[in-house]
Amino acid sequence: MAYSRRDFLHHAALGTGALLAVGGKAGAQPIAQPIAPPDKQPADVQLPEVVKRKLGVAVVGLGKLALEEVMPAFAQCRYAEPVALVSGHPDKARRVAAAYGMPADAIYDYAGYEKLAQNPRVDAVYIILPNSMHAEHTIRAVGAGKHVLCEKPMATSPEEAERMIAAAADKKRTLMIAYRLQYEPITRRAIELCAKRELGALKLIEAGNCQTTKAPNIRLSKALGGGPLQDVGIYCINAARYLTREQPTEVTAMEHRSKEPRFAEVPESVTFTLRFPSGVMAHASCSFGTAESRYCRVLGSDGTIEIDNAFAYRGLELHVRRGGQGNRERIEPEIEEQNHFALELDHFARAVLDGKPVRTPGAEGLADLRVIAAIEEAARTGRAVRVR
Amino acid sequence: MAYSRRDFLHHAALGTGALLAVGGKAGAQPIAQPIAPPDKQPADVQLPEVVKRKLGVAVVGLGKLALEEVMPAFAQCRYAEPVALVSGHPDKARRVAAAYGMPADAIYDYAGYEKLAQNPRVDAVYIILPNSMHAEHTIRAVGAGKHVLCEKPMATSPEEAERMIAAAADKKRTLMIAYRLQYEPITRRAIELCAKRELGALKLIEAGNCQTTKAPNIRLSKALGGGPLQDVGIYCINAARYLTREQPTEVTAMEHRSKEPRFAEVPESVTFTLRFPSGVMAHASCSFGTAESRYCRVLGSDGTIEIDNAFAYRGLELHVRRGGQGNRERIEPEIEEQNHFALELDHFARAVLDGKPVRTPGAEGLADLRVIAAIEEAARTGRAVRVR
Amino acid sequence: MAYSRRDFLHHAALGTGALLAVGGKAGAQPIAQPIAPPDKQPADVQLPEVVKRKLGVAVVGLGKLALEEVMPAFAQCRYAEPVALVSGHPDKARRVAAAYGMPADAIYDYAGYEKLAQNPRVDAVYIILPNSMHAEHTIRAVGAGKHVLCEKPMATSPEEAERMIAAAADKKRTLMIAYRLQYEPITRRAIELCAKRELGALKLIEAGNCQTTKAPNIRLSKALGGGPLQDVGIYCINAARYLTREQPTEVTAMEHRSKEPRFAEVPESVTFTLRFPSGVMAHASCSFGTAESRYCRVLGSDGTIEIDNAFAYRGLELHVRRGGQGNRERIEPEIEEQNHFALELDHFARAVLDGKPVRTPGAEGLADLRVIAAIEEAARTGRAVRVR
Amino acid sequence: MAYSRRDFLHHAALGTGALLAVGGKAGAQPIAQPIAPPDKQPADVQLPEVVKRKLGVAVVGLGKLALEEVMPAFAQCRYAEPVALVSGHPDKARRVAAAYGMPADAIYDYAGYEKLAQNPRVDAVYIILPNSMHAEHTIRAVGAGKHVLCEKPMATSPEEAERMIAAAADKKRTLMIAYRLQYEPITRRAIELCAKRELGALKLIEAGNCQTTKAPNIRLSKALGGGPLQDVGIYCINAARYLTREQPTEVTAMEHRSKEPRFAEVPESVTFTLRFPSGVMAHASCSFGTAESRYCRVLGSDGTIEIDNAFAYRGLELHVRRGGQGNRERIEPEIEEQNHFALELDHFARAVLDGKPVRTPGAEGLADLRVIAAIEEAARTGRAVRVR
Repeated sequence: MAYSRRDFLHHAALGTGALLAVGGKAGAQPIAQPIAPPDKQPADVQLPEVVKRKLGVAVVGLGKLALEEVMPAFAQCRYAEPVALVSGHPDKARRVAAAYGMPADAIYDYAGYEKLAQNPRVDAVYIILPNSMHAEHTIRAVGAGKHVLCEKPMATSPEEAERMIAAAADKKRTLMIAYRLQYEPITRRAIELCAKRELGALKLIEAGNCQTTKAPNIRLSKALGGGPLQDVGIYCINAARYLTREQPTEVTAMEHRSKEPRFAEVPESVTFTLRFPSGVMAHASCSFGTAESRYCRVLGSDGTIEIDNAFAYRGLELHVRRGGQGNRERIEPEIEEQNHFALELDHFARAVLDGKPVRTPGAEGLADLRVIAAIEEAARTGRAVRVR
Repeated sequence: MAYSRRDFLHHAALGTGALLAVGGKAGAQPIAQPIAPPDKQPADVQLPEVVKRKLGVAVVGLGKLALEEVMPAFAQCRYAEPVALVSGHPDKARRVAAAYGMPADAIYDYAGYEKLAQNPRVDAVYIILPNSMHAEHTIRAVGAGKHVLCEKPMATSPEEAERMIAAAADKKRTLMIAYRLQYEPITRRAIELCAKRELGALKLIEAGNCQTTKAPNIRLSKALGGGPLQDVGIYCINAARYLTREQPTEVTAMEHRSKEPRFAEVPESVTFTLRFPSGVMAHASCSFGTAESRYCRVLGSDGTIEIDNAFAYRGLELHVRRGGQGNRERIEPEIEEQNHFALELDHFARAVLDGKPVRTPGAEGLADLRVIAAIEEAARTGRAVRVR
Repeated sequence: MAYSRRDFLHHAALGTGALLAVGGKAGAQPIAQPIAPPDKQPADVQLPEVVKRKLGVAVVGLGKLALEEVMPAFAQCRYAEPVALVSGHPDKARRVAAAYGMPADAIYDYAGYEKLAQNPRVDAVYIILPNSMHAEHTIRAVGAGKHVLCEKPMATSPEEAERMIAAAADKKRTLMIAYRLQYEPITRRAIELCAKRELGALKLIEAGNCQTTKAPNIRLSKALGGGPLQDVGIYCINAARYLTREQPTEVTAMEHRSKEPRFAEVPESVTFTLRFPSGVMAHASCSFGTAESRYCRVLGSDGTIEIDNAFAYRGLELHVRRGGQGNRERIEPEIEEQNHFALELDHFARAVLDGKPVRTPGAEGLADLRVIAAIEEAARTGRAVRVR
Repeated sequence: MAYSRRDFLHHAALGTGALLAVGGKAGAQPIAQPIAPPDKQPADVQLPEVVKRKLGVAVVGLGKLALEEVMPAFAQCRYAEPVALVSGHPDKARRVAAAYGMPADAIYDYAGYEKLAQNPRVDAVYIILPNSMHAEHTIRAVGAGKHVLCEKPMATSPEEAERMIAAAADKKRTLMIAYRLQYEPITRRAIELCAKRELGALKLIEAGNCQTTKAPNIRLSKALGGGPLQDVGIYCINAARYLTREQPTEVTAMEHRSKEPRFAEVPESVTFTLRFPSGVMAHASCSFGTAESRYCRVLGSDGTIEIDNAFAYRGLELHVRRGGQGNRERIEPEIEEQNHFALELDHFARAVLDGKPVRTPGAEGLADLRVIAAIEEAARTGRAVRVR
């Protein structure tokens, strides 16, 4: 068998502490002479960690994302496991519970949501509902004593987000927003390259997150908190913030409102520019009306980064360019792809189990919502708007 | 959240039958108006399959491959699960069992290997031992009534392989050789492109599978059945056979024997050419002494394929070129990467559970061993050798 | 020798008319049996065109672009040749004339510019001066009876441009603006893909043209008509117009004014969005303060284009993506790179020699200047501005 | 205009001596304040070299390569120019002469070849004839006092090559073989990376040079010295030699003889392996029966190189991989593509004009022919053959 780049999906994210190397001292003999019966074992083989206690998670909402991404991702988690389901569709919930080996009494409906409080196996909920329902179900969950991992956008307004943060603080529960890219290694490498000024001084960020969203889809409903800015554009906003580590102060924006029936309630596309205190401008577009296109470019004084398929669930490619006229080169680090949702869930689980802060708390979600509010105002008025 | 290319690791390999679409009739309304509380759900969401019975597998040998690739891969299987371990290192075995939630009595040593017969939860064994031990442990396993998935190379000689095949046939047990690439989608697409003559008539195959193997390592031991041809070169042989769907008739070869101590027993590198009845020549190199390099090129009369990182555990890239002077274009299909071991295990499990033949039975492994024998003779004698 | 993709720099742009295939009838014999002494000659060999009369061009301004790009490019032209130089530096002009085999009396200074009228070998001038000097030298050239190829931006204001167009029309001289990308094959393929709706309906254009411009440099001087919008951003504007084949109606913009001394007169970076009648939005950034970064993405409803290194003198790469979830593929047509300046000069020469219109006349340059004026106003006021 | 990577086709190959920087002292002012009328001129602008005397070259043979590659390439030469044509087709020769502005008396036929001696403008000949005619026309040219640049393969046998070398030495004329890749910058970078041991110790070379060659074509004629080994395989042999800087000692080979009529005289494909004294093995294939495929991979102990489109006239791409498991990265230096033939001609011209040795003299061509003879014997006999 060929040894290639190592993967170890659930190991790689944990750092060295989680990987216990077998103390194989490289002996004097050039060739392994195993004592019968041997196990195939170079000196650097790594034993799996024994995890005593996993975080029990109730998945709230069984839509496409929950079924096609989150539930399968648990198989690659080391510290979190699904222990309950909350759904308005009992037949579907039973089917999913059976597929994942969960007992029948682990199924809840929205009316009986507070009954989760009585289930000691449920440590936390993962809220994967329409955006307009995030605030209510977060506040009810912390009220029931549960920690919360909430999908983005965190809420439909900064005010809702503030209430969610206050409720979690009041109940001393962890509230984390599911910004999965901040947990996956390609984006982390980009963040690190920027932080270490490997590109020199940051100057411009250019990003796009565009896709086709067909009706019927809750993302097309204003009442449910949908819209391209909320569902895909937010990735570009968050990227501009985690790459610069600054908060934007001013925005301009333009939106396109289509006559297609599916776009009756939300714009088809929105473009916007954010101004940051350091002078960086971040320029982005998002759309529900185009073929899939996701990218992020970071321009520094001395080099650039491009992430192709940025923001996608998988398939991200990092390209770094350094040097100038005559000696420029493109560098593509080989970074092992990992399941974004598993990494995010494991981070959340470890933080809750160890009583540590999360990387993307409620405040992270609130900051993006303030930018979204400013972008919407700028697009509506045609004027530059200051971010609150 | 952005919808991107779908993954669904354990779904994608199963075909449409395993994916039950929710019968969401696209209504007259352009925008979803979910009844409260809604689940996020476009019409095409897919429910997970409920699997009644999984194949119980005993993993035999807890070396690097078993620990770093196979054990983690089970989490992505739908039809197979690890239920026992066989190891000569009880401490390690206990640690691994604990990490994967297996009971303490699921651990066996090599002396007590036949006791697997008494464990009804063990349907099959996956043999991940040094090559020289494959034959014995396969024959003992089928003797204990177990089906066998055996790593490649199947054995250290065609004669051993023949005995293994005979034993499995005699006991009416399934014997599958772990040619994982024949189960992963990028290689399958290449096979399909060749079979459908999308490249015109096949003419040449060029492949290389080279890596650094440092001492101590069982792959460097002749007594244990190691060597670059056996451990990495076999991928090129197998590729030439599955791409052409022919058996080679003649080989030439050259090997390099290094003076480095680690290469005292096996050649550092081997190159060889296989001649096929249709006139195709397959040209390959393998090495334990170079930086990692794995590729496969298929040249047809009308187009070419290149697989970069071919034979690696992950990171394979398929490039197709069509057209000639002036209108040539490079096409890169976006094919979702999946865990090779999970796909291979699920194929094996489904075949055993459903009583169907496997794609890579013992005969597949035997054919490669006959080619290896011919290559070794050609390298030794400097002459073209006919394959038996 | 290996036959590969054909180049033939000055042939490929001309179409089939310029290439006369030798009438080699493929005979009955499978192998060429040349009569001694043979020339190496497959049936499809192409003879070069005999050009009777080349357009004589006076190069006006001997700066970096003229010396490093334009003068060398003439060697790859079929229909144009340099016959005179206009420069304020007589020593430099003599050196350049000697290097290119031009006689000493083919050198002019700016005061004596009108003396070009007496040189019958000079059919046209190629104006490669600071932007603020384009209008004056264009108007003086047509006054001297010469055709004009003028670098972009055409002028420093729409009003200047209008005067240039009027002067050329009055004197019945050709005025072409040097939009070299509209003549090179990769950009032309992109234009064609959009025009044929190969991407479905166009939705968004995302472009960036950014570089490091160090002082001293005329591009940093407002008095000389410099600035990132004028010198590099104009490429993005022009691209949005040639890809959509529409004129933008409204713009928003944001600029960054740096405290670095080199940016005392012009902004460091400008971002802007153009709205087109069809609903397309084009989103672009330009800068003089970043490492080199040039790209153009076109998003349609059914596919996307990315041009990497778009707007550069060379090294452009065209990537097309088609298909959606599960069957998306990236296509990279192999298009022979050609010298942009040679293609542009040959187009100009053929148009003048044959009395035909040019693809990028003065009106093309004027349209971009109107957009630039609107962007500058939008950036200054923070408001959406209508394009005149 | 955007400044991008510089090209300067005829400058870049010459080194710094040929590029005279204008002594622009960067002044105290941050922005250029040119005195009217200014030329666009950053401090680093480079003036063209004035070349006093160019080498006059007679092109011998007006086949496809001469017409489509070599004649156009002269436009990008600085030190060589075409001054005469030798052809058996007077009509074609007149047409070509007219197209390139050569006088009618600069045309010769093969019978009158020695009359070149009387033409003082002809310093050298570039022989682009069928392989079987190389020796005769080289020997006759040096006899007429001319230097010779001869296409590869140099001759049809080592013996012929030895006679050519002896004749040139006897007449004190330069004999250079047209190994164009040894003059172009991507291949030179690869050679340099190997020479500096940037990949560690060299271990394996894998190369392929395959294309479709249709009848009628002199390359398919044995009498004319054609064959895939002679016409395309020779590139792989030469590459193995210039990358290792060693001479191979032993070869194995296999060839495929097709039943297609066009392959009546020459094999369709040949594969071979060369053994070098250091232990490097070079493994290659060549064919006239496949879609175009050209690559070269170099495997060292610590890194690898891949050149895609290696051996083609243009479009070569250099990929370097360094690092191992976990930190491997792919590096793509941006190297300006240049016309291979122009670089080769300029090297030849400078060597002749300056009385210096050439990089690829007759001995270089002879070495490859000795390898070809060994490969042919190995393919015929099925045995490993020692290189003379």
